[in-house]
Amino acid sequence: MTPNPSLVLNKIDDITFENYDAPEITSPRDVIVEVKKTGICGSDIHYYAHGSIGPFVLRQPMVLGHESAGVVTAVGKDVTNLKVGDRVAIEPGVPSRFSDETKSGHYHLCPHMAFAATPPVNPDEPNPPGTLCKYYKAPVDFLFKLPDHVSLELGAMVEPLTVGVHGCKLANLKFGEDVVVFGAGPVGLLTAAVAKTIGAKRVMVVDIFDNKLEMAKEMGAATHVFNSKTDGDYEALIKKFDGVQPSVVLECSGAQPCIYMGVKILKAGGRFVQIGNAGGDVKFPISDFSTRELSLYGSFRYGYGDYQTSIDILDKNYLNGKEKAPINFELLITHRFKFKDAIKAYDLVRAGNGAVKCLIDGPE
Amino acid sequence: MTPNPSLVLNKIDDITFENYDAPEITSPRDVIVEVKKTGICGSDIHYYAHGSIGPFVLRQPMVLGHESAGVVTAVGKDVTNLKVGDRVAIEPGVPSRFSDETKSGHYHLCPHMAFAATPPVNPDEPNPPGTLCKYYKAPVDFLFKLPDHVSLELGAMVEPLTVGVHGCKLANLKFGEDVVVFGAGPVGLLTAAVAKTIGAKRVMVVDIFDNKLEMAKEMGAATHVFNSKTDGDYEALIKKFDGVQPSVVLECSGAQPCIYMGVKILKAGGRFVQIGNAGGDVKFPISDFSTRELSLYGSFRYGYGDYQTSIDILDKNYLNGKEKAPINFELLITHRFKFKDAIKAYDLVRAGNGAVKCLIDGPE
Amino acid sequence: MTPNPSLVLNKIDDITFENYDAPEITSPRDVIVEVKKTGICGSDIHYYAHGSIGPFVLRQPMVLGHESAGVVTAVGKDVTNLKVGDRVAIEPGVPSRFSDETKSGHYHLCPHMAFAATPPVNPDEPNPPGTLCKYYKAPVDFLFKLPDHVSLELGAMVEPLTVGVHGCKLANLKFGEDVVVFGAGPVGLLTAAVAKTIGAKRVMVVDIFDNKLEMAKEMGAATHVFNSKTDGDYEALIKKFDGVQPSVVLECSGAQPCIYMGVKILKAGGRFVQIGNAGGDVKFPISDFSTRELSLYGSFRYGYGDYQTSIDILDKNYLNGKEKAPINFELLITHRFKFKDAIKAYDLVRAGNGAVKCLIDGPE
Amino acid sequence: MTPNPSLVLNKIDDITFENYDAPEITSPRDVIVEVKKTGICGSDIHYYAHGSIGPFVLRQPMVLGHESAGVVTAVGKDVTNLKVGDRVAIEPGVPSRFSDETKSGHYHLCPHMAFAATPPVNPDEPNPPGTLCKYYKAPVDFLFKLPDHVSLELGAMVEPLTVGVHGCKLANLKFGEDVVVFGAGPVGLLTAAVAKTIGAKRVMVVDIFDNKLEMAKEMGAATHVFNSKTDGDYEALIKKFDGVQPSVVLECSGAQPCIYMGVKILKAGGRFVQIGNAGGDVKFPISDFSTRELSLYGSFRYGYGDYQTSIDILDKNYLNGKEKAPINFELLITHRFKFKDAIKAYDLVRAGNGAVKCLIDGPE
Repeated sequence: MTPNPSLVLNKIDDITFENYDAPEITSPRDVIVEVKKTGICGSDIHYYAHGSIGPFVLRQPMVLGHESAGVVTAVGKDVTNLKVGDRVAIEPGVPSRFSDETKSGHYHLCPHMAFAATPPVNPDEPNPPGTLCKYYKAPVDFLFKLPDHVSLELGAMVEPLTVGVHGCKLANLKFGEDVVVFGAGPVGLLTAAVAKTIGAKRVMVVDIFDNKLEMAKEMGAATHVFNSKTDGDYEALIKKFDGVQPSVVLECSGAQPCIYMGVKILKAGGRFVQIGNAGGDVKFPISDFSTRELSLYGSFRYGYGDYQTSIDILDKNYLNGKEKAPINFELLITHRFKFKDAIKAYDLVRAGNGAVKCLIDGPE
Repeated sequence: MTPNPSLVLNKIDDITFENYDAPEITSPRDVIVEVKKTGICGSDIHYYAHGSIGPFVLRQPMVLGHESAGVVTAVGKDVTNLKVGDRVAIEPGVPSRFSDETKSGHYHLCPHMAFAATPPVNPDEPNPPGTLCKYYKAPVDFLFKLPDHVSLELGAMVEPLTVGVHGCKLANLKFGEDVVVFGAGPVGLLTAAVAKTIGAKRVMVVDIFDNKLEMAKEMGAATHVFNSKTDGDYEALIKKFDGVQPSVVLECSGAQPCIYMGVKILKAGGRFVQIGNAGGDVKFPISDFSTRELSLYGSFRYGYGDYQTSIDILDKNYLNGKEKAPINFELLITHRFKFKDAIKAYDLVRAGNGAVKCLIDGPE
Repeated sequence: MTPNPSLVLNKIDDITFENYDAPEITSPRDVIVEVKKTGICGSDIHYYAHGSIGPFVLRQPMVLGHESAGVVTAVGKDVTNLKVGDRVAIEPGVPSRFSDETKSGHYHLCPHMAFAATPPVNPDEPNPPGTLCKYYKAPVDFLFKLPDHVSLELGAMVEPLTVGVHGCKLANLKFGEDVVVFGAGPVGLLTAAVAKTIGAKRVMVVDIFDNKLEMAKEMGAATHVFNSKTDGDYEALIKKFDGVQPSVVLECSGAQPCIYMGVKILKAGGRFVQIGNAGGDVKFPISDFSTRELSLYGSFRYGYGDYQTSIDILDKNYLNGKEKAPINFELLITHRFKFKDAIKAYDLVRAGNGAVKCLIDGPE
Repeated sequence: MTPNPSLVLNKIDDITFENYDAPEITSPRDVIVEVKKTGICGSDIHYYAHGSIGPFVLRQPMVLGHESAGVVTAVGKDVTNLKVGDRVAIEPGVPSRFSDETKSGHYHLCPHMAFAATPPVNPDEPNPPGTLCKYYKAPVDFLFKLPDHVSLELGAMVEPLTVGVHGCKLANLKFGEDVVVFGAGPVGLLTAAVAKTIGAKRVMVVDIFDNKLEMAKEMGAATHVFNSKTDGDYEALIKKFDGVQPSVVLECSGAQPCIYMGVKILKAGGRFVQIGNAGGDVKFPISDFSTRELSLYGSFRYGYGDYQTSIDILDKNYLNGKEKAPINFELLITHRFKFKDAIKAYDLVRAGNGAVKCLIDGPE
């Protein structure tokens, strides 16, 4: 068997390098990808530090990683739209093909979803493999070919970018709308970038750290920023937003005060999308929903068509290299590590210290 | 001038009979209605007891009443679809014809709405007149002709019925869906009746009083009932609902525990409509929205087309008198008063004591 | 092997009885159904008389039949919601589980659909088996358990009923709307019944045969009928429809004059659904679409959720047997044949002579 | 009275300059605009040459012009968001404030619409005044302030641009979709520009004149062009479109062969918007609609919110002057005339000869 070096979370505070057998093609639609770049996600860190997220409990060693891009090394006999050597972004969750959710166009809600580096709710099922390894197997329809000018590094960022895409689609965001994004972590920044790219007029990013707000502006995602710790209450926010109440709020922080403020600032008929993980109950101004006929949409990962939209966004952003791209996505990549230093990478992100997006190379 | 006997709330705890001048036709679309039946709404009682609801503060005497039906006594020269003697239900809120909300099809969100028996937010504006008087003036497009077999008593119930219609429309309720309604006051019962009429498969009504739940079944609105005080938690609810999680929750109680339970029971992708007035912040399981991609829609009164839908519902319910109507709307009318006894009626409803819907005749 | 008596169309004008091997369970989700009742569809007759429908060309012998209900005789090991003895309606088209159409919630548009008794477009693929046989194999998610009070005969009519369900869903038909249905063949009559059941106010059926129009009324589907040959032009139609222009037209005839008239009668903003097969180009008043902002939706068979809606419609129609059901579906079944007389049944329907729906028993 | 020089179409082939009285403010929401730039529309030419368009028949002299921008010279007492000196685009059609169409959010379908330079259907009503005059009166909510960097010339092009906006909204055009636009006249070119600006991936413009197709590319609206006279049939079109079938067709030519081809090229589930005026019946491949579940939406002028979207598009296109704007809208302005030469302008456009958009200055 071909060796498959992998980064494994054994239990809380315990990550090791392991050498498993590489996957092989067993179905005609299978594709093997050599993983080249992987981003670290907050959920990875959460399992590392706490061993579980809600009903997803780590019970046995699990290969980490689900934000990856790589190069195709083998394809099954029915694969026609990918070939060896193609550069691809990996969509890390594969649903049942038979569930009502999948057949109705909502495969991301399928209860039988196998999601990379996420322990199953059912303790009898095995851990779906993560992508922090050399060879990763996926069905062809969960791999997306990267345009020539989109780097593998950006390819690894397609996963969190698509979280923003999904939220914007749930908001049914239209050209010319005014949007406020709460939270300037990677998902918040990428969500703001999506909103800007698909035509929002004003995009305000709200956070409590000025350096993150600065990045939101510098990367080209935010037209306005607001420090919710130092700039005042929601009336101050609206004043700074040219006196305009947004019609859409994209909540990426999961923080109680942001959720509350986000509802308060919406104009009548406005839409609120909960993208960030609040982690539990919140104090919620539900009367505002009735009085101004607001809507709230919970956003879970991403679903049919969303990965392709992310690819289209990165493609459109390039401008043939002749001009400065509207969005500087690379700015978010604050740290890069070799695979052999992957544990250091995890410790760095776990420690905080200003990392926005940290990428790890695939094993050599 | 023609005298216009009216029931007036002067201030908290102070209702009197007054005799004003009757309104006259001043615009070619005006219609004068002689009011025949008026229901008492919880909001009337709230002003009587507390003098305000949120930003709506009683500052000067105000004619009460906004749930009324009557008979046309005069029409302006451009009125073609109503004539003297027609029996009509009165839609009690008239918006500006020039606001963005009105022009975009959402007149009920118009900030310039003049709503009967509701004090204006702006203290410089006069109180819009209520309908508890002999003669009431309305523009023709806010009056709805009753079918021959629909009584004036049912005509007075069109207003709360339409609150349910609006909520069901926001839920985008489809034929065959399973619905749970929280709250078995007049609005909850009527909302359940709407859901049943437009094709819901299972309709469960939830309340803490068994007699109200009994009425929900007896009137033909509920296929299932659940006493949230004595029947158990939300797993017990689902079990009693044939093991089915509803795809739609219509929350008509405004009560914190109902809102919380209503979110918990929804299946993935389900819709929650807040119809009842929660009156403030609540503890809210927002993580359920993200994880199961739920949606929340705040419902405010009713808007374009909703009154006509209520008329259609009452019309369809009749069945040419040959068979028992599917819904027994009359069952909700538990008390009837003459106009001269209107203050007693208010005191009775204020005291509670099992009144569901109390109707007051118009002045003779 | 178990014998499987089957009715086979060999080529134009050539139907024979054959005895094939019965299918066996090969996948854990497979179910074997003993077919009990099968309706004859116009497309069956078209293949019998002409050998092809558009790109679907009969190139080799094909088992006929796709409107069937039966009883489960065996289930695969992963089947949990059906058991031996259950009575089921058969959804006769099974798509690929991997196509974009299926994953986006539109499996009925999947180019890899295998549809019973429909020759493949690609001449290299085999004919999908029809249902006019003793034993038929289907995946569990394309079988729908019949409620106790719904007969196997009605079960066989679920297929054409679902064509009407799909068209009404594309029309986004709402409670209280006024609908005109063109064509009073089985699909037109069932489409009218769907429109009525899910809440249409007025339902007019249009045809050129008075006896069919009479059936539309007698079965409880039509509130109004119009003979387009003898009752006049479209102004006469609107006059007979209480002077009302419909907001929805459901075109089930495929006939040029009906399509043309259907567009002309629609009110501004109205929706037109093409359900019938027009079989080619038509003269079309497209300027009416621009001037009145009409919409046209092509309807193809049925898709996710539609079979369940049909089951719900039949279920709701029963009324616990205490009262006359609103719709008399059985009225459409004008002829019944034993399996051994199936060729006679085909010849009878082919000859016309007033057959509406002809059912054939399964082999004994 | 202030004199109001005006360009008047008296009857077919007969345009003269007249001097009417200038309008005055009579309602508190009125605004007087001094017209500065006016475009000539195909409909103007049609009335000039033929005296009618469908049911709109010229029966008495009518001031021409409905594509205009100008400067505010007076405002009514309730006007707060415009002031004297503001530069505005004029939305030329004002509906009744009381119709069902207006209240339901579709004022452009209001049967009581008064549209500049369009004779009324009802011969008893007067002609609504056109904009080719010095002073024009409009209600404030039908005037749109131009951003500082948007010229009055572009302001005059907002009207046809908005026709494209409305069509794209009816198509529900999403970021990343592939679009084919038929017709490279002003509306076709502007519609393509809208599609590109709001995020279409591929935009092909189809026409029979190479110079118009060249302009589509040069102005930045088209990524692909196709000459339907010389480049082949619809298979050739798809081949030239990178082998992709569009999901959206925007038909701006009104020509039978374009409509037919537009339907043929759509992918399954695709949407077809009829924007151009076909002027009558067409041969129509309606079977394609059923088989591939296509949708057709008729587009009529523009409605609520569309003018604002056009302003947003022009605003976004500017890029702060630092970079080349994505769309060169000015390229369409091929001819400019003084007001005193307005008849020459009409004759030039009527003669054809390559004019795309011809602008006329306001009277001095």
